[in-house]
Order: sequence, then C-alpha cells, then structure tokens
Amino acid sequence: MVAPAAHSPCVDDVVAAHAALRRRRPLVQCLSNAVSVNFMANVLLAAGAAPAMVDNPQEAASFAGVADAVLVNLGTPTLAQVEAMRLVTSSAQDAGRPWVLDPVGAGGLPWRGAIAAELLDHRPAIVRGNASEIIGLAGLGGGARGVDSSAESSQAVNAAVLLLDYATAVSASGPVDHVVGRIVCHERARVGLIRVSGGSPFLPRVTATGCALGALAAAYASVASDPLAGLVAAHVHFAVAAELAEQKADGPGSFAVAFLDAIDHVDERALRERARIEPVCWME
Amino acid sequence: MVAPAAHSPCVDDVVAAHAALRRRRPLVQCLSNAVSVNFMANVLLAAGAAPAMVDNPQEAASFAGVADAVLVNLGTPTLAQVEAMRLVTSSAQDAGRPWVLDPVGAGGLPWRGAIAAELLDHRPAIVRGNASEIIGLAGLGGGARGVDSSAESSQAVNAAVLLLDYATAVSASGPVDHVVGRIVCHERARVGLIRVSGGSPFLPRVTATGCALGALAAAYASVASDPLAGLVAAHVHFAVAAELAEQKADGPGSFAVAFLDAIDHVDERALRERARIEPVCWME
Amino acid sequence: MVAPAAHSPCVDDVVAAHAALRRRRPLVQCLSNAVSVNFMANVLLAAGAAPAMVDNPQEAASFAGVADAVLVNLGTPTLAQVEAMRLVTSSAQDAGRPWVLDPVGAGGLPWRGAIAAELLDHRPAIVRGNASEIIGLAGLGGGARGVDSSAESSQAVNAAVLLLDYATAVSASGPVDHVVGRIVCHERARVGLIRVSGGSPFLPRVTATGCALGALAAAYASVASDPLAGLVAAHVHFAVAAELAEQKADGPGSFAVAFLDAIDHVDERALRERARIEPVCWME
Repeated sequence: MVAPAAHSPCVDDVVAAHAALRRRRPLVQCLSNAVSVNFMANVLLAAGAAPAMVDNPQEAASFAGVADAVLVNLGTPTLAQVEAMRLVTSSAQDAGRPWVLDPVGAGGLPWRGAIAAELLDHRPAIVRGNASEIIGLAGLGGGARGVDSSAESSQAVNAAVLLLDYATAVSASGPVDHVVGRIVCHERARVGLIRVSGGSPFLPRVTATGCALGALAAAYASVASDPLAGLVAAHVHFAVAAELAEQKADGPGSFAVAFLDAIDHVDERALRERARIEPVCWME
Repeated sequence: MVAPAAHSPCVDDVVAAHAALRRRRPLVQCLSNAVSVNFMANVLLAAGAAPAMVDNPQEAASFAGVADAVLVNLGTPTLAQVEAMRLVTSSAQDAGRPWVLDPVGAGGLPWRGAIAAELLDHRPAIVRGNASEIIGLAGLGGGARGVDSSAESSQAVNAAVLLLDYATAVSASGPVDHVVGRIVCHERARVGLIRVSGGSPFLPRVTATGCALGALAAAYASVASDPLAGLVAAHVHFAVAAELAEQKADGPGSFAVAFLDAIDHVDERALRERARIEPVCWME
Repeated sequence: MVAPAAHSPCVDDVVAAHAALRRRRPLVQCLSNAVSVNFMANVLLAAGAAPAMVDNPQEAASFAGVADAVLVNLGTPTLAQVEAMRLVTSSAQDAGRPWVLDPVGAGGLPWRGAIAAELLDHRPAIVRGNASEIIGLAGLGGGARGVDSSAESSQAVNAAVLLLDYATAVSASGPVDHVVGRIVCHERARVGLIRVSGGSPFLPRVTATGCALGALAAAYASVASDPLAGLVAAHVHFAVAAELAEQKADGPGSFAVAFLDAIDHVDERALRERARIEPVCWME
C-alpha cells in the first residue's frame, strides 16, 4: 500500500500537486465505462494529464507498468474488461503504481459489487464513489437507485473509514465531498476526515462527471506527496472548476463545455481564492 | 402489453407528462450503442430523468425489475449486449415495465433485423426508428443506407401500423414525425395517426439525436398516462428543444450544446407555445 | 491497391475533393475506439459525410460492400472488433473500396502492433497516425508514450515511405503534418512528400481529434481523384477548421464545439485563403 500522509492536506498541498501535475503530465491508464471515456479523456487532457484508455486483457497489465497511475471504473463492465481489471490492478500493485477504484453502482448491483470487493485485495491508493457506492462497497447495506446515490455523502463516512483497511484514501462525492485517509501524526497513524465544499448543482446533471473525478484523482495520486493529498487536490480542482463554469453556463450542455475550459483555466490563484478544505476531525 | 390510450394525445397530455417526468425523475435503463451513450445520458439528465446504462447479461435482467423503463437500441450490438437485450426485454415484459425498441439499421442489416424482430415478441411499449428502419422491421423491404433513412417518414405509416401487432405505439422520425397507436374510442380500439412537426435541420447533423429520442420516449412512457401519450410527449419535447437550440446555434457543434440546455429549459409555456401536434386520421 | 496520384495535390485538388464530399455524401463505415466514436461521427456529419459505426463480426464485412469507405482504428480493440477488422479489410480490398488504417498506439503496444501489421496485407488506401505510431508500424522501433507521440512527425517520414509498400498514401500528424504518396510523373512512379501546416495547439488537447481525422481521410479517399489527394484534403480541411475554431475558443471544451461548427463552415474560400500545402521533395 502507498504510504500514509504526513499531515492533513491544505491548500498549499493542492497548489503543489496542481503544479506537479502540469509539470509532469502523468500518463493515466483508464479502464472505464463507455458513457464516460470521451469526457474523462477530455478532463484529463484539460487538466494537463495524458489519458490512455487501454482496457483489453491482452495489453492492460503490461501497460500498467508504463502508466503513472491507473483508474478502474465499474460503470458498464464487460467480461473482457473485468478480466483486464483483475490483471491491471495486480500489475499496478506489483509495480507500486497508484490505482483508483471507482465502484460505480456497487451499492445496488451485487455482481459488480463482488468484483469491486475482490479488486480491493490489490490495494487501491484511492477509492472514490458516491455515498451509496461507498456504503455498498463497505458492506453496510446502503441502498442505491441505479448509479445515482440515494444517501448523503456524510452518511458514508463510517463506510469510508472501513475501506481504509484496503485503500490509503477514500472519498464520497456529493454537494459536500467527504474525504478520509490515514495520516501519520507524532508517529501514530490516525484517520483524518476532510470536507471539500464548492462545486455546482450542474455537476450531477452532466453524465460522467463523477467518473472523470476518479480519473483526475488517479492523475493527482501519481504526482502528489501522498494519495490523500492527491485525492483532496482532485476534489478541490473539480469544485473550483465547477464554480467557474457555472458562471458561464446556461444549462447542463453549456456547463459541460465551460467545465472543460475551467479545468484548464484553474491556476494557483483560483485554487487559493476558492478552495474550501475543512479538516473536520481525527479518529483513532 | 401496456394498455392502449383513451384518446389522441394533445398538448395538455404533453404538459402533464412533462410535469410528471420532472416530478418523478424516472430511472431509465439504456442498452445502447457506444456512439450514443454519453449524449443519451446527458439528454435524459437534462430532461430530468435518471439514466443507468446497465447493459451486461449478468445484471441487465435484474436491473430491469428496478428501473422505471428500459431502452433497447441496436446501434452497435455486441453479442453480450444482444444476450442482455433478450434477458432485459423478457424481464421488463414480466415486470410490466415499459420498454422501447430502437431498431437502428434494421432496414439494411439482416442480422440485427432478425434480432429486432425477435425482441418484438417481448412486446415493447414503443418502437421508434427512422422511416427505413420502421419499414425494414415490419418486413416491407424498405431500403436503407447505413443507419440513415432513405425513405420519408410518411412512407412508413403503413409499416408502423403493422408493428402495432407487437407494440402499443410506434413512431417514424423525420422532418415531420409520424406517430401511430391504438386508441380506445367508444369502447372500440382504433388506430390513430398523429403528426408532430417542428424540430431543426440540425438534428440529423448531430449523431445520436435519434437514439436519445428513443431513450426520452422510454422515460416518458413510464410517467405518461399511456405509451402513445408518452411517445408524442417525447417527440414534442425534442422538437421544441431543437427549435430553441437552433436560435443559438452557429453550426452542428454549438447546436448540440444548446440542445442539451434547451432540453432542460423546455417548460409548460414553451410546450404550449410551440407544440405542433396534428391528429391526422383514424383507422379501423 | 488504389491507383497512385497523377500529380502532387494542390489547393485545387482539395477544393475539388471538398465539393465532391459535400455533393456525394459518402457513407463511411468506422470500426473505432469507444473514446472516439461520438466525436468521429459528429466530425463526419459536420463535414457532410454519413457515418455508420458497424463494427461487429456478424455484419462488418457485408456492410463494407455497401459503404463508400472504411476506417479501422485500433484505439481500444476488443477481440470481436479485431475479428471484424480482419473481415472488413478483406472485404474492402475485394470490393475495391478504399480503407484507412489508424494504428493507434502501434508504436508502444506489441499486441495491437502485430494486428496493425497484419491488416496491412489488405492494402489500405491510407495509413494515418502520429509519428510514433508510423515509426512503430514500420518496425523502426520508435518509442511511444501511451497513445501520444513522443517523436516529431518529420522523424516519421522514412517510416511513412516504407509503409508505401502497403498503402497508397501515408501521413504522420503533428504541428506540421507530413504526407507521402506515390505519384506517377512522366510515366515513372515516384514518391512525393507534402507538408500541411496550420491547425491549432488545442487539437492535441481534445481527445479523438486524430481519430476523427482518420475517419475524414476515409471519407475524402472515396471522393477524391486518388488517396493522396484525399489524404491531403482531409489534413487541410482539419487544419483550416482548427484555425477558425481557435478564434472562438476559450479553452479545450469550447474549442471542440467550435471545431465541429468550423468543420461545417469550411468552404472553398476558407480553403483557398488558409490552405498551407507545401510539396517538399521527390524521392525515387
């Protein structure tokens, strides 16, 4: 597993991670659903990362040795993709590459829920989902309605903490994002909960925004000081871009376009002015 | 089969269906082609519905028991999708859920034509296609050129009526949409033909607009008083949104963006001002 | 193999090809990756062509007998797609239909590199890739980083010339596009190198633009006097549209939208004013 964080991420960590992403242009391998792949690749490109959607079992594992990070998203899994996901997560684990699990629909669909649970054995750096998915993956029986969440993200905090047995950092997206991760503090590992606010009501009205956030988290995980800092940076980058985009949007269609522009436009100044990162509490 | 309509749908039915869609936010399961899925999900979200693209044979059938409506679109079928389509349509039929068949390319491609014909046995609430596809599916030998129609939608009326042996309502899209359905009138079942006008010449210049219309018809079928009213409502919502979008478009790219905004913006006033629904005739 | 060109293409050839594309509206069958298919279909529609993404082994070969041109793109190949690619390229070769090979990732991924090399036996009219892909496909060991090029397109000229043993015209895309093809001059077949300049730095920041260029090249190959003229026309159309779009773009999201509009807007005047076609040299 990737090392825990040294402190609770703040805006300086986000700014540093953002600069590193722009400078290093990480190669992010995405195994994702058909609905999301175009928007996801465009979000990664706009952020300054390099996407590669290599998702077949013949190539996925060896490519994971070259990629800087891997995203595994269970939105519309085919059997071939599931086989590739098993291989790629094993390969990423062996190579010490951070990988992100986005357990789309895990709360309400048992078949993929079992696959997601199995993939946890390969120790993702990050798990990102909506509240129902995080609750469902943790086995807490949270209901789901299709791929949308029927739970509040704050309700998912306990489930997210349980998933820290497998992942270094976990988040539940929502109007307020809840992020948890192990943080070493005075030589003791503790669990920190961070809330990231902002964003836009348009975000859930554009398909694949959550999926793209998972991919951006993978990009950040490969350049940030640790996965928790990377995950917080991805949430903040997303929230700030959404706020900027909302100012130009006349509906969900124009919002999606302005959002891609804004993912590109976000800079240190926008991050410092708009980031809303709230370290909430420490748990043993 | 879902019950026939009590009367020929008028603008009041469209307004009522639109309000119900916004209020109930139906969960629409889509098994569709790779070209369409992103745009289709965004159209459903913009309209106020909740899309879920669960299209694998492992999950599709059980999910159909949860979804409010199902769309089956034959644009780029894989063998796994075809298996899922068989399962999901059977499940939807058993559960009494309305489902929509969009027989993309059925007019010119025999393999998928046979699949589409087989799926009819599971009694779709709605069949929606272009004229060539409706003619092809009805076995009337109408030619097609790829996935575009080489026939006028008015030529497809006879074919659409034949398909009422399987479906409750059928439409052939075109510059003028032709919609047919069984209507109970003075305790006798008759067939009504309705024309929906409007739209924009940009619509056929953006890929997947027809596919998205099929998905929107599924959403409406689950909230309207009957499938015919739902199908007419979907055509009217689409046509009105296209007219609004054309005013802001500078080409097919900006039209697609403005169209998603307009699908969101359409309200009772726009529907009442712009709906052009023409009940044409009754057939025995 | 399709006949070689009679002369090095100039702006008159591009204008003629563009007029022919608008007039004849070629049907282009695309077997392409999931990331690209929506954008690709929209680019073809905006240009005036008719896309059909028939990519399953059950239908692909027979459809190739109907289509005016075929695109084979190796972005995210499934085993079923690879089987369809083998069938469709054989069918296109037999029917004398021009087909385009886009060897995405061939420079760095051996499995698909071998598939691409095998497909060359069916004699594509055109091979289009980035520099790393052209070098990789020619077996010259050019490195690649995912699906992006790590080589300059000028470095790929020797590799492109080697591929002329299989294809009638070959291009390596980049800030300057390098196009090579066999040209009959005074009854002797020679190899011409043409540079096409223009475009926009936004192009590589929008996913699937290269893929869409390959599809547009297929459309042009079916209407131009020869594949080389068609390939140059596609590059010029793309570059001019990108220049027009950049004037309206505020980032990669709005660029992509304006680019689709501009693909539609490009006309004879824009082509004559902005085309930058440079015949560089002749090789024996």
